[in-house]
Amino acid sequence: MSRFFSSKYKALTPYTPGEQPQDMKYIKLNTNESPYPTSEKAQRAAAEAAKKAQLYPDPECRELTEKLADMCGLSFENILVTNGSDEILNFAFMAFCDESCPAVFPDITYGFYPVYATLNNVPYTEIPLREDFTIDTSEYYNKKSTIFIANPNAPTGIALSLSEIEEIVRQNPDNVVVIDEAYVDFGAESALSLIPKYDNLLVIQTFSKSRSMAGARLGFGAASRELIADLNTVKFSTNPYNINRMTMAAGIGVLEDEEYTRNNCRRIQKTRAYTVSELKNMGFESTDSLANFIFVRHPKRDGEGLYRELKARGILVRHFSKPRLSDWLRITIGSREEMESLIKTLREMLGGN
Amino acid sequence: MSRFFSSKYKALTPYTPGEQPQDMKYIKLNTNESPYPTSEKAQRAAAEAAKKAQLYPDPECRELTEKLADMCGLSFENILVTNGSDEILNFAFMAFCDESCPAVFPDITYGFYPVYATLNNVPYTEIPLREDFTIDTSEYYNKKSTIFIANPNAPTGIALSLSEIEEIVRQNPDNVVVIDEAYVDFGAESALSLIPKYDNLLVIQTFSKSRSMAGARLGFGAASRELIADLNTVKFSTNPYNINRMTMAAGIGVLEDEEYTRNNCRRIQKTRAYTVSELKNMGFESTDSLANFIFVRHPKRDGEGLYRELKARGILVRHFSKPRLSDWLRITIGSREEMESLIKTLREMLGGN
Repeated sequence: MSRFFSSKYKALTPYTPGEQPQDMKYIKLNTNESPYPTSEKAQRAAAEAAKKAQLYPDPECRELTEKLADMCGLSFENILVTNGSDEILNFAFMAFCDESCPAVFPDITYGFYPVYATLNNVPYTEIPLREDFTIDTSEYYNKKSTIFIANPNAPTGIALSLSEIEEIVRQNPDNVVVIDEAYVDFGAESALSLIPKYDNLLVIQTFSKSRSMAGARLGFGAASRELIADLNTVKFSTNPYNINRMTMAAGIGVLEDEEYTRNNCRRIQKTRAYTVSELKNMGFESTDSLANFIFVRHPKRDGEGLYRELKARGILVRHFSKPRLSDWLRITIGSREEMESLIKTLREMLGGN
Repeated sequence: MSRFFSSKYKALTPYTPGEQPQDMKYIKLNTNESPYPTSEKAQRAAAEAAKKAQLYPDPECRELTEKLADMCGLSFENILVTNGSDEILNFAFMAFCDESCPAVFPDITYGFYPVYATLNNVPYTEIPLREDFTIDTSEYYNKKSTIFIANPNAPTGIALSLSEIEEIVRQNPDNVVVIDEAYVDFGAESALSLIPKYDNLLVIQTFSKSRSMAGARLGFGAASRELIADLNTVKFSTNPYNINRMTMAAGIGVLEDEEYTRNNCRRIQKTRAYTVSELKNMGFESTDSLANFIFVRHPKRDGEGLYRELKARGILVRHFSKPRLSDWLRITIGSREEMESLIKTLREMLGGN
């Protein structure tokens, strides 16, 4: 820390992204990327857009935003696109939380929420998940706080139903409820349909997972016009040209290739079922994940040891050292072939099976 | 404003970017874009990178950062790349300003500085430029504040010399001095060479102007390791994957095509000299701009009227309504052909000449 760094960030510990080794070839099952390439239509659109990269992009992102609005059954004024969904999460902490309006989220969830709270000097409460990692929704009623819920949750993959989400939104009429649907396309129910009914609901999605665009950085929020107007005030006071031309074009391209996306999601769900079944045969325990990752532990092996041995054998998975999570591994669902390699390797490691 | 918006942003008025009309074909001389296309090497690199867009980008941006460090005669640890230079400007307001360390900048400069100050709840003082729009550097000595100076300044184009900049840095040893060099490549002196000597200097540059990449969104800061480490703490607490793969690749590509950049800068300087000379012949007054824009007024015509009439005739320039600026126009230096059209149009408008 330099002698010039503002003391307001003394308590700030940055988020640690999953390892992104640039050197060795791993089977990379640690950051929930898609095993399928970005839509060729999106790739071509990005390449075409690079030819006009000397000109600023449209700061309103009108074409992309309108396409998204169509897809969501909403209007242009209900959508804000951002440089990955992390950017709009931060905007939501900025816009809808402060010292008099704290944040509330589960104790086990996306690790960035407490970082954003600290960054923005927002007091926050972490509500413990039940022992089986499920959320007790009644604990989120009438909180007088801004609520952040990842649905499905990370790193557990467990989802709430649409009616459970709606009840949380209904029970907090004077506070914003943020539903972070980064992983919603792999089997859970989206809350987008509730937006016309509730002015306090912000749904956040990303192009990084189901749309195979983690490297392009594109996310969006959907909400009432008033909430989106506030988030636009923050955006235009932070980085008006937050989306570059190539990413914007790729986003439009992939939305025109929706069947490719839907097909990839179905393949991942199928591979997830296969992987869970094989791991259970080996004695692993698994949560009921509806995401593009699974969350598993083996009764006889500690999580960190498994993580290290898998890495030594060329397979990267994610391990969290937090007490309740340290026995567990979060494993991205890759291609069928990658998951077969994982299973073969784990069989060798565990012996016998 | 929604009923949920944090009261801390009550006073926030977002930055207004220059018009980016998506409909009609204008000669666009209002947002200081380059008239020359993005380097073909950069375009090809972006297209190639789109093929791997399903994978997260390197959050450290190592290859690009090392290339930039080489170019600046500095090390990897001295450089941070960002989603346009606006992002690192905001990071600097976040990291190095707070209620006990206000910001100081000229009253006439890049319009985003007061927005960032307000966004981050930072008190700020605007020091008036002299009547001729020059900066009295002695007014920036020993300020006990974080100093922001655009060099060349915007929208005047007037630059301080390297020795004047150094004296400001030297006279504020216990505060950060930020030199925003968005327009430095068109004839002014960069302060990059001072970085090894001063731990309190942050130099900010952009790929938007001289490198023809406004649409790709890429900027960077160069400073002592300690300042860059602080800015990295902010980055990794805000948006770790702030640079997408296509932009990163394009950035690397354009740095490998430096002769193209240098040649374009020379052409713009030549066109600037031609344009100023023609406008002076028409009775315009002009500042001594070292940027890729000029700042001019006509003694007999008001700025807003000229702006409107030019727009009606298909030429967009920038007009600011701020009192001291309202007589003036900021005109981007486009291609020689574009500037010939501008001059022809102004002749028709002003008559006689």
